[in-house]
Amino acid sequence: MSRRPQAVELPPLGGFDRTQGHLSRQLTQSLREAIRAGSLKPGDLLPSSRQLASSLGIARGTVLEAYEQLIAEGFLDSQARAGTRVASALSRSQPPGGSDSQRQAANTAPASLPASAAAFAKVAEQFKAHPPIPFAVSVPVGPTAPDETWRRLGNRIRAKGPGAPSGYDDPQGVGTLRAAVAEYVRRSRSVRCRAEQVIITTGTQQGLYLACQVLLGATDKVWVEDPAYWGITKILESTGHPERMVRVPVDEEGIDVRAGIALAKDARAAFVTPSHQYPLGMVMSMGRRDALGMWAQKNKAWIIEDDYDSELRYAGYPFPSLQGFAPDQVVYLGTFSKILFPSLRLGYAIVPDALVPAFCGARLLMDRHTPTADQHVLSAFINEGHLDRHIRRIRSVYADRRSELIGMLNRWIPQDLGWLQPSDQGMHLVLWLAHGMDDTLLASHAMEAGVVVRAVSPMYSEGRGRPGLLLGLGGFSNAQIEAAVRRLAGLIKMMGKTGHKPAHG
Amino acid sequence: MSRRPQAVELPPLGGFDRTQGHLSRQLTQSLREAIRAGSLKPGDLLPSSRQLASSLGIARGTVLEAYEQLIAEGFLDSQARAGTRVASALSRSQPPGGSDSQRQAANTAPASLPASAAAFAKVAEQFKAHPPIPFAVSVPVGPTAPDETWRRLGNRIRAKGPGAPSGYDDPQGVGTLRAAVAEYVRRSRSVRCRAEQVIITTGTQQGLYLACQVLLGATDKVWVEDPAYWGITKILESTGHPERMVRVPVDEEGIDVRAGIALAKDARAAFVTPSHQYPLGMVMSMGRRDALGMWAQKNKAWIIEDDYDSELRYAGYPFPSLQGFAPDQVVYLGTFSKILFPSLRLGYAIVPDALVPAFCGARLLMDRHTPTADQHVLSAFINEGHLDRHIRRIRSVYADRRSELIGMLNRWIPQDLGWLQPSDQGMHLVLWLAHGMDDTLLASHAMEAGVVVRAVSPMYSEGRGRPGLLLGLGGFSNAQIEAAVRRLAGLIKMMGKTGHKPAHG
Repeated sequence: MSRRPQAVELPPLGGFDRTQGHLSRQLTQSLREAIRAGSLKPGDLLPSSRQLASSLGIARGTVLEAYEQLIAEGFLDSQARAGTRVASALSRSQPPGGSDSQRQAANTAPASLPASAAAFAKVAEQFKAHPPIPFAVSVPVGPTAPDETWRRLGNRIRAKGPGAPSGYDDPQGVGTLRAAVAEYVRRSRSVRCRAEQVIITTGTQQGLYLACQVLLGATDKVWVEDPAYWGITKILESTGHPERMVRVPVDEEGIDVRAGIALAKDARAAFVTPSHQYPLGMVMSMGRRDALGMWAQKNKAWIIEDDYDSELRYAGYPFPSLQGFAPDQVVYLGTFSKILFPSLRLGYAIVPDALVPAFCGARLLMDRHTPTADQHVLSAFINEGHLDRHIRRIRSVYADRRSELIGMLNRWIPQDLGWLQPSDQGMHLVLWLAHGMDDTLLASHAMEAGVVVRAVSPMYSEGRGRPGLLLGLGGFSNAQIEAAVRRLAGLIKMMGKTGHKPAHG
Repeated sequence: MSRRPQAVELPPLGGFDRTQGHLSRQLTQSLREAIRAGSLKPGDLLPSSRQLASSLGIARGTVLEAYEQLIAEGFLDSQARAGTRVASALSRSQPPGGSDSQRQAANTAPASLPASAAAFAKVAEQFKAHPPIPFAVSVPVGPTAPDETWRRLGNRIRAKGPGAPSGYDDPQGVGTLRAAVAEYVRRSRSVRCRAEQVIITTGTQQGLYLACQVLLGATDKVWVEDPAYWGITKILESTGHPERMVRVPVDEEGIDVRAGIALAKDARAAFVTPSHQYPLGMVMSMGRRDALGMWAQKNKAWIIEDDYDSELRYAGYPFPSLQGFAPDQVVYLGTFSKILFPSLRLGYAIVPDALVPAFCGARLLMDRHTPTADQHVLSAFINEGHLDRHIRRIRSVYADRRSELIGMLNRWIPQDLGWLQPSDQGMHLVLWLAHGMDDTLLASHAMEAGVVVRAVSPMYSEGRGRPGLLLGLGGFSNAQIEAAVRRLAGLIKMMGKTGHKPAHG
């Protein structure tokens, strides 16, 4: 081992930090970097472990350990008496050096992407989460946040028993939560179901996604309300078969079933919001429910009922679900994300028995299952009566904020420029804008001014859009609401005057 | 209102429970049910509110409230002086009566399903979560469960600040966790990345799913190792284009890149497990890493590196990631589900900058984002040094259990019937079985005998399978392990004798 005149001069190996310990690991890393960077080349002979140890002032065992690791990794070769060399299998020129930030600046995209990737990227750009300021939807601040009960219950449930850390679980969701949900929707929504039909989801969005996955073949047509929630239209647009989405107009009775039949009688499914049309807020009439059910039955089509906020009805009781009338044809979607808090990400799909295995399998491939601890916490929260109390409490808070907001909008926004869509339910209001106003532009200016609104016209199909703004009811204070309304009113008036882009500020 | 001779005789409306309160709600429900069940028919005239109130012995206001609600719902019509009638729009024959359990027994599936739904249903049947008994993989019981620190930290973080209940969040994940993950993988896995490239997922499975969604067009070919993890093969089989999955054999150096090129040079992506081939356990050699990287660079293909359990290496250090060699071509997937606990569902994808927006958009459509509270808890767990300590602790537990298990398998299972695949990493072992043995049948008999094993042959492509069993290392006690090995050995010997199905028991 001592006669090895050809051993390379090692490049500087980077400073060792003796306070960090793991010297052999540090050495391994340095040698690996040197090989990667090309300062050590395939075939290069390394100094003996003894030489290197002495020159670095470290123990020989440390060097031997590093060499062994690099041999195991394939960076080095060791042949009995021939010493240790950089592996000649490393013939490929190493990846270009350059720091990570240089690489980032170049923004290299060496491989190619399918068209759908661009569509996904656009979705990410368009639907950023809003900051918790007026008029973001469902912001659990102040009185709309769950009270101490939720936290204390969580601490208890997570400590031991089934809510404590555990292994993989049922893709369908935790059994006790499914039972609690079944009982809750039977009681409050006249949904006809058993716990075996409930599938716990990571929010309604996952329910919509699963329904598309399971129910639709690649070219099946599907009815979607016009206007509709972006969460469903963007899924269908991203599939590579956007032509399969048939937009069906809504009027004051909800989705126009006759128009749907005229457009695509043979559609495989219809996505609807019968309790509270999104975003406009009307209830689907009994006649339309009837017609929709008949069409679905006759054409062996599915109805996906998105019942996203029926807990918040301010007059009368919530409408009974469509599912209760046609339990074999309806996939019913609900969520606790809005009524409790969005960051919880807990919702549910209630599906006919025949669909349960397919939903579970699709779910398994997508992410196996929803995290379990909060499923157990929520199940206790429902069973111990806290959910009902929480809903009663926030219903009165939202009712209060809502009438405040309506009052202030009526006061500050000129009637000819903006007026409210009637509705008596939910966590948002729609403010229509005068013909010709650009709601998207207005929304982006409002955001710059610290006010969150969503433009309504992009929720319509191409060419049918009317300008409007969707204003969410958070748990904001009256002072916050008033300040935001006044700023918004200023922007609207400015746009009303100029007919286009308002000046900044 | 008093001259209405045609008012129908109301059917019995179900008992009112005066202790429950909400009498008007109870009445509404009863009338609704009567209409649904057909005992009240479209056009039927109802008694006046006064008559009904008096006959039921309740306040007239209660009846009026119920009528108003049902009018709003469209069940009833009210014409000034003509009284209140069951809405004639309800002309459709109501859905068949019958209890929910009767409907379930009939298992009606009125609408039709695409072929993919059957594939999903089969996945659900095949991949049920295992009970927490030997040899389930990654069961956090006893010494492998996170200690009190995790729980206490959780209670603290969830109480206030960003870990407390909040609104919708970034689809990419919580910023502090992304920074902690970037630092962790740079340090432990030589991954080259910044926090901006990290996408928090609901476990590795979601990372695989997202990669398929974003990187693959409908007909793009893709290399998958043979054998491979069901979590990737089943996604690709469920797409309706199973022919695009090209299975590439692995040998003792990992995936055979030359064979892949011969089979499908133009594939768009390769899914690989370089640190620890799943399920066989070998490390991909430097030569193969080199060849794979060169192929990907030349063909503008993506490499998806599934690094599911490299924390658990029992000899030397973990191998550096493939990503570190080709950060612009590799999507790197990691998970905390295994190393901490599976029910947590927290993993990550680290992607080249150019892919970040597309991954976020696909994620947004799938389920918006991973629940946030535990993201904050995990970030503190990493930053405060607990994760490193936890890994050191369970590494020694798993090393111990592993050598126990190896010893017992060698002791109880005859060499000619079963032998171990060499491996020095991970949470599972592969036990090869003698030629001709039916591992799937054996696994199902083992399950009946209270022993969890997975058959290896179905992880291979059709016709290439070798019989073997995958045995997971949980935190089981030595006594549990020994009892399970002995039962398993009994079944193997019986099958070895008969050459086929072992007798029950």
